[in-house]
Amino acid sequence: MEHVFFPPLSRVAVCGGTHGNEMSGVYMLRELKKRHIEQDGPVSLITVLSNPRAVESCRRYIDKDLNRCFTSQMLRQVEKNLGPLTDDTPYELKRAHELNAQLGPKGSQEAVDLLCDIHNTTSNMGLCLILYSADWIPLHILKHIQSKMTSTPVRAIFIDLPASESYSLESVGKHGLTLEVGPQPNGVLRADIYNLVKEAVELTFEFVQKFNAGHTFEGGEVEAYTMEDSVDYPRDPTTGEITASVHSELQDKDFKLLKPGDPIFKRFSGETVTYKGEELYPFFINECAYYEKKIAFVLGEKVKLTLPPISVQKD
Amino acid sequence: MEHVFFPPLSRVAVCGGTHGNEMSGVYMLRELKKRHIEQDGPVSLITVLSNPRAVESCRRYIDKDLNRCFTSQMLRQVEKNLGPLTDDTPYELKRAHELNAQLGPKGSQEAVDLLCDIHNTTSNMGLCLILYSADWIPLHILKHIQSKMTSTPVRAIFIDLPASESYSLESVGKHGLTLEVGPQPNGVLRADIYNLVKEAVELTFEFVQKFNAGHTFEGGEVEAYTMEDSVDYPRDPTTGEITASVHSELQDKDFKLLKPGDPIFKRFSGETVTYKGEELYPFFINECAYYEKKIAFVLGEKVKLTLPPISVQKD
Repeated sequence: MEHVFFPPLSRVAVCGGTHGNEMSGVYMLRELKKRHIEQDGPVSLITVLSNPRAVESCRRYIDKDLNRCFTSQMLRQVEKNLGPLTDDTPYELKRAHELNAQLGPKGSQEAVDLLCDIHNTTSNMGLCLILYSADWIPLHILKHIQSKMTSTPVRAIFIDLPASESYSLESVGKHGLTLEVGPQPNGVLRADIYNLVKEAVELTFEFVQKFNAGHTFEGGEVEAYTMEDSVDYPRDPTTGEITASVHSELQDKDFKLLKPGDPIFKRFSGETVTYKGEELYPFFINECAYYEKKIAFVLGEKVKLTLPPISVQKD
Repeated sequence: MEHVFFPPLSRVAVCGGTHGNEMSGVYMLRELKKRHIEQDGPVSLITVLSNPRAVESCRRYIDKDLNRCFTSQMLRQVEKNLGPLTDDTPYELKRAHELNAQLGPKGSQEAVDLLCDIHNTTSNMGLCLILYSADWIPLHILKHIQSKMTSTPVRAIFIDLPASESYSLESVGKHGLTLEVGPQPNGVLRADIYNLVKEAVELTFEFVQKFNAGHTFEGGEVEAYTMEDSVDYPRDPTTGEITASVHSELQDKDFKLLKPGDPIFKRFSGETVTYKGEELYPFFINECAYYEKKIAFVLGEKVKLTLPPISVQKD
């Protein structure tokens, strides 16, 4: 594939606490703030605690899920249709507006060059990057991290959406990626998970430094998972109450191929529910925040993407 | 030891959702309600969702920790000093009042004979009973469960308090015990943890049936842990912010003897903090809800208690 050139990554934002009970990002930011008082050469690092009120009360969000507020349409609605933000405006919409002003505006030349948002999951997903399949920069960051972290699998989920329709915070940057790391209970900081996040953030910085210094990142293949479908918990048709738990043979088996006939749920009345669909890879298995979204697990295909060699545009 | 006789355990209460984000109890109750429409012989089973508003919003509590509201003094305060309960009364104080009326009054002849309250922890504590060292009934239930569940260790924590000073819900019953089962993230239901809870509840019912039927439970020894001390996370003396995570060599090692020199914390700046105290057993290691209580882990001694044989009083 033909060599692709990008402008330097001069302004890099690291965000955490977008969900206020996912602790790795909250603590990572505190450390980054202490460390980067001395600037990192020509790169300006911006650290942002995205949802301070949710962090304060250790909840995912106050009024609504902040990480679903960043489609271009929602950002426009806040600015135009709602008029001035009032006390009645949901807190997260105000924060989306503020973050878009600070780190964007989304889709503009003023936006930060790279936005890395740190999340945790209660699912056994290890270190997982969520990124856009049409953007070579985060895909090369994935490849860089995979080549350096050999002790643990580094997986990725592709979001196949144009940036304008992407609802999550990292879509505000010119290039964006989410670190999704688990398993970690909400409100708890685990050292093992924190260390994975720290290593991934440092390798991202290393990539940025090398990229800006003129290093060519060779092309090649990366493997990742698409998001094809999701499966809800079995529910009582009358009350809507959940009537089964994720089966212990599926629990913690994120990214292990699911085949027809495999057990997926165990009803409280005793019976096992088996999988009826086509062979796909499950992830976000039994993620805490997805109960309210009616998702017991997400299903995806494993795909390969071929990357071109990239390097920085020379003046 | 001399044989001890007790009146029959005619009214048994099983409570869950005392902390609204601990899911095993919430789901266990739903199943018990379905199953016990047909009554269980001479035993009347009462199932209570202790904190429905906290369950609804999937939080530990709304205004204050319900499971700290049941000392005799606090229950009297609500009734006498505060006068009629108003909209300004913290929700959990109102619930404590209602639960005390429904399941107690604490210390009275009207109280339920046995109160079993189901909790979860994010700590790796497996199946653990919390009970009063001065009450033979729950101690014999512990011994019964230990003798039947051989696949997993069944541990116990003794609370050495007179019932009047006990702050937790199970102290409202004539006899009480708490099931504390983990690790499970808040807001998540794990099948493995649910199965432990279910087995323990069923063995408790089995004990009650046999006891009421006149079976003699032989004396013997049970082993358990006292609560001697607790250790807070290292904090910044100015801001109060936590500056270290629980060390990965201590994380998940609940009930494994801690010796002087063992690593207990890893500072974000890199250094390891080692343990300086006497040899004790840690538990509730990195429990989510204890961050706000300034407890990184609890320390206890392992002790043995000798139980007398017990059986039901004949008329």
